[in-house]
Amino acid sequence: MIQTPYLLFLGDAPDALAAKVAQGIKDWRPENCVGQYRMEGCKADLGLADMTLEEAKAAGAKTLVIGVANRGGVISQAWKKVLVQALEEGFDLASGLHNLLRDEKDLAAVAEATGQALHDVRVPEVEYPIANGKKRSGKRMLAVGTDCSVGKMYTALAVDAEMRKRGLKSTFRATGQTGILITGDGVPLDAVVADFMAGSVEYITPDNDEDHWDIIEGQGSLFHVSYSGVTMALVHGGQPDALILSHEPTREHMRGLPDYQQPSLEDLRDVALQLAKVANPACQVVGISVNTQHLSDDEAKAYCAKVEAEMGLPTVDPFRHGAGRLVDALEAM
Amino acid sequence: MIQTPYLLFLGDAPDALAAKVAQGIKDWRPENCVGQYRMEGCKADLGLADMTLEEAKAAGAKTLVIGVANRGGVISQAWKKVLVQALEEGFDLASGLHNLLRDEKDLAAVAEATGQALHDVRVPEVEYPIANGKKRSGKRMLAVGTDCSVGKMYTALAVDAEMRKRGLKSTFRATGQTGILITGDGVPLDAVVADFMAGSVEYITPDNDEDHWDIIEGQGSLFHVSYSGVTMALVHGGQPDALILSHEPTREHMRGLPDYQQPSLEDLRDVALQLAKVANPACQVVGISVNTQHLSDDEAKAYCAKVEAEMGLPTVDPFRHGAGRLVDALEAM
Repeated sequence: MIQTPYLLFLGDAPDALAAKVAQGIKDWRPENCVGQYRMEGCKADLGLADMTLEEAKAAGAKTLVIGVANRGGVISQAWKKVLVQALEEGFDLASGLHNLLRDEKDLAAVAEATGQALHDVRVPEVEYPIANGKKRSGKRMLAVGTDCSVGKMYTALAVDAEMRKRGLKSTFRATGQTGILITGDGVPLDAVVADFMAGSVEYITPDNDEDHWDIIEGQGSLFHVSYSGVTMALVHGGQPDALILSHEPTREHMRGLPDYQQPSLEDLRDVALQLAKVANPACQVVGISVNTQHLSDDEAKAYCAKVEAEMGLPTVDPFRHGAGRLVDALEAM
Repeated sequence: MIQTPYLLFLGDAPDALAAKVAQGIKDWRPENCVGQYRMEGCKADLGLADMTLEEAKAAGAKTLVIGVANRGGVISQAWKKVLVQALEEGFDLASGLHNLLRDEKDLAAVAEATGQALHDVRVPEVEYPIANGKKRSGKRMLAVGTDCSVGKMYTALAVDAEMRKRGLKSTFRATGQTGILITGDGVPLDAVVADFMAGSVEYITPDNDEDHWDIIEGQGSLFHVSYSGVTMALVHGGQPDALILSHEPTREHMRGLPDYQQPSLEDLRDVALQLAKVANPACQVVGISVNTQHLSDDEAKAYCAKVEAEMGLPTVDPFRHGAGRLVDALEAM
């Protein structure tokens, strides 16, 4: 678990897109963000207060989060001076980059000397159990996609935010690097050893109040041959009461698989629901989330209306239309 | 890849069951077995020639395989003297036990000094790729089960043996510890990191002659919530042309999950086939393998006949009735 609040490190980001992890943290958990740290030449700006390490420390920041990715997703030598200084001033460090903080000898040595933690969120930090399938108290929602990268994380974060806005009990459960950095907790599911995948999902969605919702971040797709095993572990380990189908309607083929077409929403609904009912016979499909970023406003509205009529389920783009109708459907269960 | 042939180490096995890994190797790959090594008090006997290390070495054995499990599945101190001596005499060691040969300081030191290999088959030895889903040449069969431990490995080994007996091109592809020790090669799928599961299955079942069959060892079950992700990776990474359904009809609940019932063979057929068709639209379910070990001869015959009538697929217990009818079905494709 990563200590909050954060100082967001934007480094020498060449553009706003390079700081999209930091942007995600600021968008979804502004209360976790004390300020931003920018090096000379940084082209990203989250609109947070620019702070020195000393100022951020005085403002209560506990962890410096690397919210920027340079080319190749590695830890840049140009950042090292700031990272070392942060450790010396009592910050923990957190990163989702490919190469690990712990493998950088200078950072590892200073962390050891200062007693500060290095969080590489791509690496599981827990010895997860094998899933036991026991019925847990509380409610759980999972977004399942026709493909990878169709907006499952966004959907879950938007549903969680709307639920909390309504005063409902809800917790976003992160299963990927960005989600873990946003919330400070979760499982990097794609890095877990096969036998323990479903158990890790059970572990992060434990017994809870009967009126509490775990909003579980989805991964992959049951129809994406590279990652379907990870999705399967979420469907069974997550024991969802509710599924939301996620879709991006302009894809020409499955992400990274030129020879594969996306399944229909009907096929996704039927396969996901049958498999989910193994772990939770009461599971229902409650709504559809469409990523309409490549459609105009009118096209988006028309597409969602068409799908809604065909599938008989509330259909929205939570980014464009809000997640209200999806939460209505969850509340109505 | 483990060097063959083997000397099978039975140690101080308290009974025949404790040596079941060695028994599997001897049953399925007698040509890999030069002899057996038994310590004083050993109660197991494979009917192979008892050999000293020197005799086995002279007979060509390359690897001493630990074919015995003691209580807890760990490497016994009582075995150490023999294991060290084997390394010194030029044997590699191979083990599927929970604790690793490489973690035993004495064995690691002697292996390093002698240049011999320590194979812990529970640990992946390859950096597997992420699955790319590209269509591969050659044919593939996968057994999928209503539950774990219903006879999928036995079915695959029996089909492979029958195919080779008929002069067909066939390779058993191991995906678990015992299978890897039997053949000397394969992937310990349950120990692979999630993102690489399907890729590891693609890796062990590469392009081949168009008339060659990979007979892939199944794992888990799409309906077993603890391990279904592993099974899913086999269904998509294996790209099977043919599925065989495996079932054990006397189970009162799913293995290790008292609150879960086995699915029907119809449900298994429908779900497995729909998912398999994502990776291989031509996939067919060609037969059913029933583990009838808890039924009498008459009961077994009657049960298989009943299932065959209901499902319209050749239904046999390959242990009791042979795998001939399953191979007939594969040949007819």
